[in-house]
Amino acid sequence: MEDRTFDCAAGREFIARAEELGRLSDSPHHYTRTYLTHAHREAARRIAQWMGEAGMRVRVDAVGSVIGRYEAASPGARTLLMGSHFDSVRNGGKFDGVMGILVPVACVAALSREGRRLPVAIEVAAFADEEGARFQTSFLASRALVGRFDPSLLARADADGVTLAQAMREAGLDPDAIRGPQVDLASLAAYVEVHIEQGPVLLGEGRSLGVVTSIAAGTRHWLTVRGVAGHAGTVPMAMRHDALAAACEMVLAIERRCAAGGSRVGTVGMLEVKDGTGNVIPGEVRFSADIRAADDETLAGAEREAFAECDAIAARRGVRLERARTHSVKAAPCAQGLQDGLAASIERVEGAGPARRLPSGAGHDAMILADVTDVGMMFVRCGAGGVSHNPAKNPAALMLSAVAFMPDG
Amino acid sequence: MEDRTFDCAAGREFIARAEELGRLSDSPHHYTRTYLTHAHREAARRIAQWMGEAGMRVRVDAVGSVIGRYEAASPGARTLLMGSHFDSVRNGGKFDGVMGILVPVACVAALSREGRRLPVAIEVAAFADEEGARFQTSFLASRALVGRFDPSLLARADADGVTLAQAMREAGLDPDAIRGPQVDLASLAAYVEVHIEQGPVLLGEGRSLGVVTSIAAGTRHWLTVRGVAGHAGTVPMAMRHDALAAACEMVLAIERRCAAGGSRVGTVGMLEVKDGTGNVIPGEVRFSADIRAADDETLAGAEREAFAECDAIAARRGVRLERARTHSVKAAPCAQGLQDGLAASIERVEGAGPARRLPSGAGHDAMILADVTDVGMMFVRCGAGGVSHNPAKNPAALMLSAVAFMPDG
Repeated sequence: MEDRTFDCAAGREFIARAEELGRLSDSPHHYTRTYLTHAHREAARRIAQWMGEAGMRVRVDAVGSVIGRYEAASPGARTLLMGSHFDSVRNGGKFDGVMGILVPVACVAALSREGRRLPVAIEVAAFADEEGARFQTSFLASRALVGRFDPSLLARADADGVTLAQAMREAGLDPDAIRGPQVDLASLAAYVEVHIEQGPVLLGEGRSLGVVTSIAAGTRHWLTVRGVAGHAGTVPMAMRHDALAAACEMVLAIERRCAAGGSRVGTVGMLEVKDGTGNVIPGEVRFSADIRAADDETLAGAEREAFAECDAIAARRGVRLERARTHSVKAAPCAQGLQDGLAASIERVEGAGPARRLPSGAGHDAMILADVTDVGMMFVRCGAGGVSHNPAKNPAALMLSAVAFMPDG
Repeated sequence: MEDRTFDCAAGREFIARAEELGRLSDSPHHYTRTYLTHAHREAARRIAQWMGEAGMRVRVDAVGSVIGRYEAASPGARTLLMGSHFDSVRNGGKFDGVMGILVPVACVAALSREGRRLPVAIEVAAFADEEGARFQTSFLASRALVGRFDPSLLARADADGVTLAQAMREAGLDPDAIRGPQVDLASLAAYVEVHIEQGPVLLGEGRSLGVVTSIAAGTRHWLTVRGVAGHAGTVPMAMRHDALAAACEMVLAIERRCAAGGSRVGTVGMLEVKDGTGNVIPGEVRFSADIRAADDETLAGAEREAFAECDAIAARRGVRLERARTHSVKAAPCAQGLQDGLAASIERVEGAGPARRLPSGAGHDAMILADVTDVGMMFVRCGAGGVSHNPAKNPAALMLSAVAFMPDG
């Protein structure tokens, strides 16, 4: 397939559709679309409509994901699954997730217009919930797709007290029907996801596209520091056990240990002083730690070093430190063949030497799919103006030419 | 006056009265008594009753402070003012403030029982509002006493939307009548306050009582750090402008600079991450800084050093730092004669060599009185069991023997 298959109309259509979805928001003030709200179901309907117009047979799975299928040249072929999510975080970016749906739909539309069929069937999965902003879930839809839905989540309530099961029933879904995989896992050839980088690397290097080498391993923790509260004016500095000062030293230790090695990143995104008052030495402080690395061993090393230093800080300052791990995902390496295929396509289009390969520090649905099939990911750089400022106007073309490098392609 | 004047009954009465006041609380769960609530007015009535029983003529001033007067041996004598406050912070300590009322009332009761008059008149001021927990004021009552009430406060509302003026009218006070000093300033000989130390120094040194050398100068600030928010997984450590990490470094700089010199103390009691989320690099953090020192020059030096280091941290990390001073009080040195008088009395009772002299890091009504007369303060150590575990069972005796060293005494 030549790049001329896609003219600028495809790029303009992509932008228009992303803008249209971006207007479907739970909030009038910013783009927030959470699982099974009115805006979310409306987005599902638009996506289903576009899939149908692209020549796909469309179904909605048990958790509300929209899946379009474009048959292969001959029956019995394996299936190339592509996709991403159409829910958002609060005040999210309008290309986050939906790019990975709209791009493969555009690919299929082009194939369909030409009346072409590939040696693989293509399924595009528009995952209903990845961010989990409404029910504090994560990867709900892709987990359900591969048969790993956790039924205990059904009792979880949103901020208004509506349970997940209630929300599903109100949306016409049957929570009791989420049993087993929502696709034929045995027939999967691979899963490929295109996603906004959500980081500054490609932009900083003047590149448009990148090949993801692996999706980082990550863990999240809550750390609680208990010191001794006291009057800000009357307790000499040397007699203090200030929970906040101790926590601050720990935050810096986590930062320093994570800055020390390769793919490590470490972030304290939340920190709360319990009953904080201006003239009281903090007695208790709680903070989060999010630590990631390209592979599991590097992550384990970062955690070990950072937390050993936190323990030492606590001991030296005479405060107690408790730590609880709340979340853990293993690294998901991308298949070498898919990496090389995406790289070759990017090199051909960019003409700037070897394609940039980089790990994904963010989690993606591809992490979940990596348990059941080979995964590949392509990053599109982000910038102040979003993808519309991207000189590679046509990620759809790249995407499809890249997956043609697949062993089954 | 000999110590035998006060037997253990006086100590037991003191404890009983403090316990009784401690039960007059705005909350059923803890001791919280804020300006002009039901519990507060009831406390005022009890104090007025005890003052009357001690032989004092009692009046209530324009802001609800209760003032008892015990005349001097002869007319035209000057007035020794003693006192402290009977409001509390939220979940406060039951000896905070009320000790400085109950002790001089006990002194006067003893004089009155003996039919003795001193060369000075004694007035005991039970200040209605020092902590200002309800209307976010500070030293409201002692400021009013010396004629420095700020009428703009009358429009200030509490958490329920009741203004200070409304609360005063409901309590039978006339907010329009707060004009000029509530005592005859020209006749004042001195102001003496006894107060719980609210710190660990005396307890740590095995002492019961201490002489306050000065009430510390103090300033409060809000610092706002603005960095760049970003995804916790995708922004390499070297490319971050993490507002929280920068703030943590500043908190430690303030701690270190304030630990470096003499009477300095520095406390960050509040710290908030704006829109904090576990997987987002903080873009904005706001924190308080409370800095104090025994004298104004030492405080100015601590501020200068700490904030210069904060500015350097901000520049190095590429974040913006804004700083606003919200509160400032100058140091109030205690009069040498009153210090020496209190010290001599303590030395006589403790028999442990020179009395401990220490600055007060906490603010007290004496700071306000220092503008119009000589002030002296005596600290009573605090401990796990409060003053009831204090071997010096009779601060009243000490108090009165100390003020006998006054030039006019």
